[in-house]
Amino acid sequence: MNISVERLAEFAVQALRIAGLNEEDARTTAGVLVMTDSWGVFTHGTKSLRGYIRRLRGGGLRAAGRPRIIAEGPAWATVDGDSAIGMVGATFAMRAAMAKARIAGVGYVGMRNTCHFGAAGYYAAMAAAEGLVGVSMANDTPSVIAPGARTAVLGSNPFSFAVPTDGRHPILLDIATSAVAGGKVYAAAALGRAIPETWIVDAEGLPSTDPKIFPQAAALVPMAGHKGYGLALLIETLSGIVTGASIAAQVLSWSFDTADSPTGHGAAFVAIDVQQMIPGNEFKSRMAELTRQIRESPRAKGVDRIYLPGEMEWERRERALRDGIDLPEDVLAPLRLLAQELGMEW
Amino acid sequence: MNISVERLAEFAVQALRIAGLNEEDARTTAGVLVMTDSWGVFTHGTKSLRGYIRRLRGGGLRAAGRPRIIAEGPAWATVDGDSAIGMVGATFAMRAAMAKARIAGVGYVGMRNTCHFGAAGYYAAMAAAEGLVGVSMANDTPSVIAPGARTAVLGSNPFSFAVPTDGRHPILLDIATSAVAGGKVYAAAALGRAIPETWIVDAEGLPSTDPKIFPQAAALVPMAGHKGYGLALLIETLSGIVTGASIAAQVLSWSFDTADSPTGHGAAFVAIDVQQMIPGNEFKSRMAELTRQIRESPRAKGVDRIYLPGEMEWERRERALRDGIDLPEDVLAPLRLLAQELGMEW
Repeated sequence: MNISVERLAEFAVQALRIAGLNEEDARTTAGVLVMTDSWGVFTHGTKSLRGYIRRLRGGGLRAAGRPRIIAEGPAWATVDGDSAIGMVGATFAMRAAMAKARIAGVGYVGMRNTCHFGAAGYYAAMAAAEGLVGVSMANDTPSVIAPGARTAVLGSNPFSFAVPTDGRHPILLDIATSAVAGGKVYAAAALGRAIPETWIVDAEGLPSTDPKIFPQAAALVPMAGHKGYGLALLIETLSGIVTGASIAAQVLSWSFDTADSPTGHGAAFVAIDVQQMIPGNEFKSRMAELTRQIRESPRAKGVDRIYLPGEMEWERRERALRDGIDLPEDVLAPLRLLAQELGMEW
Repeated sequence: MNISVERLAEFAVQALRIAGLNEEDARTTAGVLVMTDSWGVFTHGTKSLRGYIRRLRGGGLRAAGRPRIIAEGPAWATVDGDSAIGMVGATFAMRAAMAKARIAGVGYVGMRNTCHFGAAGYYAAMAAAEGLVGVSMANDTPSVIAPGARTAVLGSNPFSFAVPTDGRHPILLDIATSAVAGGKVYAAAALGRAIPETWIVDAEGLPSTDPKIFPQAAALVPMAGHKGYGLALLIETLSGIVTGASIAAQVLSWSFDTADSPTGHGAAFVAIDVQQMIPGNEFKSRMAELTRQIRESPRAKGVDRIYLPGEMEWERRERALRDGIDLPEDVLAPLRLLAQELGMEW
């Protein structure tokens, strides 16, 4: 089904208003989710709206939650997310990191008492839209094994960064530190498809191609083995340990655990005001040289274009703004159900 | 051949003194290289000493180079490495990042006019040894393709972090953003071994198992495809673009290019004084809980221990301090040659 960006956002705003969010928080949250869908990253967009609203109605997320800075220094702050919906907390925290960066050059803001915040890339892109380098990350309920283990101990802890370029859109990377995001396994399960044997291990620690056993009897494998495992630990440190958030097995699942308990997620945001270090137009002209070298790389056989990270997503967004978004069935189904539950028209 | 850590360091100091370094710089450099060998990371230790000394004697590295801060703000600084040997520049820059972090909470120090600095992990570990989270990274001469390309456009841009724990040694990760570090391909070539087909592509962009074609007619593949490509770009930005260093194809090879030209490498160092954010013993006790959860994960069949990142290396170092280092032949050969060239006894 094709829907315009505006109508999808309006539906999300209305649903969130019914769930108790004020107008501003509803618009912030809908903005994150619809931006994500417009990138074509359907695993992290409005597909999750019903799950977030389940928690808002259950009380695990506080509709009236007000994230606030509880400690700070020249180049850092710690935010208590007050169990507000993750997108409201993360937007607040990234703005705080950007404000610190504008004064100190660098800002690192960690947050506790938050929840799943959608696509990490949205917050990194907020910084890049204002000329800063942005980084965003979060911990999550365990779904990924440590190398040599057979049960999950760390989340698929996402990492994202955005770097402004000389063009209209920043370079934007948003990755799970698992071989793939759990959302991709769920999507395969919903579509009844087998997955590559490099994505998960079963309860014995052996590779499996059956997405339906995840997460009850399976766990994700870290990206690039020990490398993804290590990066996930750095993210756990900056998002969870330093902020006072729940860590590792203490973090509840936003989608599976009962809706009345806060999940206790942690997150972290970094902004760097590169203009202080390399003033004037030089940052952009140097980025132009770098991206030119990459784009003009001799191509492998059968390849007709080299992309920058995020470029495919920004082009999908341009098409979405012009032609609407083709929502896949695994996104439509929970949205229809949500409309029914809230007595809304879909 | 087995050699004590002290004797190996003494040899390196003497060789560097002959090459014109003052006593302090020689000790700093030897300390980095021998620490790396003691971790068992032989690709980045004294194996490279002859190559660095070739550049010192050729003038591309300045034996009397004095790294200095050329611009700074509350939470950042830019260092001109003055073409000093990479280990001297990187040690200076990480100390500057730690000093900034102690005041502002976070310190980001970028450096230009430097060279290959050995193992990135050494500098991250410097911060962790004083209770800070440390991050270190650098760009390098192109050896890695962008996805879809057939020639290299980015370096294998290393990334490292260290986090203090409640134990004696920090968590320490030091990775290339290529599928493997170029040094591992060279090591396989020197030993006459074939490599897995996931490490390099040949001149047509097709996978190859022949390490001897690298780097003349081959390029490394990024770690985890688009993920490693993206991370390498972030590292290029923070190490190269922001610092005014050479970027991408402008960076010369420290081992292949003529010894009389500076390579123009860039590097970046981040320190976070976590004690400001989470005072007292709480950081360590939370890390203890996290590492306990990981270590006690149920193990996959045939696995008898779950390691933290860096733990194998720290244990190898303890053995090396006690029993000496067993230097492999591909490290011994260039050291013997170097001794000959400098008229030293090996």
